[in-house]
Amino acid sequence: MGIAYLDHASTTPMLPEAIAAMTAELGQVGNPSSLHSSGRRARRVVEESRETIANALEARPSEVVFTASGTEANNLAIKGLFWARKRPRILISAVEHHAVLDPARWLADTQGAAVELLEVDEHGRLDPETLRAAIERDPDDVALVSVMWANNEVGTVQPIPALAAIAHEYGIPFHTDAVQAVGQLPVSFAGSGVDAMTVSGHKCGGPIGSGALLLARGIEPVPVLHGGGQEREIRSGTLDAPAIAGFAAAIRVAVENQAATAERLAALRDDLIERVRQAVPDVILNGDPVDRLPGNAHFSFPGCEGDALLMLLDAKGVECSTGSACSAGVAQPSHVLLAMGRDAAQARGSLRFSLGHTSTKADIDHVAEVIGQVVERARRAGLT
Amino acid sequence: MGIAYLDHASTTPMLPEAIAAMTAELGQVGNPSSLHSSGRRARRVVEESRETIANALEARPSEVVFTASGTEANNLAIKGLFWARKRPRILISAVEHHAVLDPARWLADTQGAAVELLEVDEHGRLDPETLRAAIERDPDDVALVSVMWANNEVGTVQPIPALAAIAHEYGIPFHTDAVQAVGQLPVSFAGSGVDAMTVSGHKCGGPIGSGALLLARGIEPVPVLHGGGQEREIRSGTLDAPAIAGFAAAIRVAVENQAATAERLAALRDDLIERVRQAVPDVILNGDPVDRLPGNAHFSFPGCEGDALLMLLDAKGVECSTGSACSAGVAQPSHVLLAMGRDAAQARGSLRFSLGHTSTKADIDHVAEVIGQVVERARRAGLT
Repeated sequence: MGIAYLDHASTTPMLPEAIAAMTAELGQVGNPSSLHSSGRRARRVVEESRETIANALEARPSEVVFTASGTEANNLAIKGLFWARKRPRILISAVEHHAVLDPARWLADTQGAAVELLEVDEHGRLDPETLRAAIERDPDDVALVSVMWANNEVGTVQPIPALAAIAHEYGIPFHTDAVQAVGQLPVSFAGSGVDAMTVSGHKCGGPIGSGALLLARGIEPVPVLHGGGQEREIRSGTLDAPAIAGFAAAIRVAVENQAATAERLAALRDDLIERVRQAVPDVILNGDPVDRLPGNAHFSFPGCEGDALLMLLDAKGVECSTGSACSAGVAQPSHVLLAMGRDAAQARGSLRFSLGHTSTKADIDHVAEVIGQVVERARRAGLT
Repeated sequence: MGIAYLDHASTTPMLPEAIAAMTAELGQVGNPSSLHSSGRRARRVVEESRETIANALEARPSEVVFTASGTEANNLAIKGLFWARKRPRILISAVEHHAVLDPARWLADTQGAAVELLEVDEHGRLDPETLRAAIERDPDDVALVSVMWANNEVGTVQPIPALAAIAHEYGIPFHTDAVQAVGQLPVSFAGSGVDAMTVSGHKCGGPIGSGALLLARGIEPVPVLHGGGQEREIRSGTLDAPAIAGFAAAIRVAVENQAATAERLAALRDDLIERVRQAVPDVILNGDPVDRLPGNAHFSFPGCEGDALLMLLDAKGVECSTGSACSAGVAQPSHVLLAMGRDAAQARGSLRFSLGHTSTKADIDHVAEVIGQVVERARRAGLT
């Protein structure tokens, strides 16, 4: 048996089209900000990529601000809109990624922000009326609202258009971290009504060092990286033409294939859930049973430690995650599961299987074959 | 005649070793923060690259914090040390790159910093006693000192060890932007005595989306990008194993070849200067005549507009720059030349030729052949 890589939400293999577009550029020279022919050639690559990404996500090219990662885009959205708006309150869901949570916390600790975590239900879903109630406590004091499109751990999809509409009733800008959604769900920047949206390259088959913050007209965050001002004075740093070319190719292909991929992955994922339940009858599926990412299956295994499960599965050739890879080195219970009302032991006994474009039925067979014995062994280990 | 690419200070072609190391990684999967086998494999690439870079720059591996660019590293150093030190004064030279100047200005505009620009002489060199005098006006109020190792426009090399030693007499951390120096000059992090040093991949043959901030033990800037905390809680964002592998290969080769490259480029550069002077007798060479980057030749052409010269040269197959590519789109006189005492007209009539690893005698011949007629034509255009 080979390796069953089921950690696509952490990072997914680059698409062949993205590798080809990127490697073609690595052998070229030219800073897109240079005025000579080589520079202008590189600039064309950047601007054509910007158009490709805008088309795929139903945005205008001028709304795409390139960054080097989703993390950078989230920092720019949260800090930049807070500083631009000069109002204290930041409203975010309690289940945001650390790349949204931690900038918000830092603003609270050092820059006078008042961060409010919006409660979610047992599936991790934010009720739009929860947002409305939070805003109404003092609408004029809200700098921004940020709610992720889909959760990176449990896969729950949020009602983004409804949430954005409520923020707009009060004239408040709405940001969404759509890193996990693009390529898995239909994502329309214009159609969703959001003002700012984070996209990452390496979650949809592009290179790691690529990302973007989409910004609706008139939304101008204060920069987080100052310097040459390459991206409309909102973001500085030499434009990375090779990574941007790879990013655009990946977004184009991932969005073109989204419907077919989602159908295929959801079927595989449902098969995975069914067969894990057969092998481990008391397993708990976390996240919204219906409104969830097609590639996500997130389980709690009572009586187990997630880290032990992960390592035992790895030894059997199955690669998955206990949650967000970014904090996977830290043995603390997931804030997402705690916000969903789980206790710390249950949160720690959890595993995320995330499927992507290279996933096959053989991967699911592989998990089904080993999960029973692995859980049994982890439970015995937990008892000693 | 082909293209004479003489804009290596803006960006230089990737070294074959860097392309090979990077493309080998693009086909792999694994987030370096993931705990499974694929993640641990990617982590090994990152840590081996960290060791390679540390060895090449005479630092400890634990002193290397990866970023996605030199701009990001400079933002982290300037903003992060200001926030960490909680003192108002930031002392920087008047000839810093925008990626140092602009973060400092933003801190002054919005975060209570008092930024002091240290005067330089007519060659762009900062006298260590100028720094001492500035510190002594109120040593306890200085958050940090930042002086670039070598200037990106005129190539002047600063007396970094002497400057760092003065800062240390007063217990003040010293940062240097060494983006232009690495690969062109011998650069030792330990030997220089600096506390923080910015390095960029694409200025020495690595990929654009790579950079690092070297931090001596005990120097802990507040993060500029918050999130997963991947780099010792000082920098967040998924570690870009492919770019980091390419970055390390480039730094290793560039530093191994530095002495030979410097000798070869200095000879070509001196030939270039001599032949430009022959063709344009009233040309002025800017920057320190001796202590300058081996690949840099920066001229003022009296009676010319730099943009016109650049475009006329481009049409003749010579690619160069009017200054920093980052602000090349903006027709304003260089702050570096103004700080060196030039007037605005002289500053605007300037061109930078910067040589790198692919430069040859044919490139110099090419410039020598066309520069006279191009300057003549630009002067005629200026008169109409």
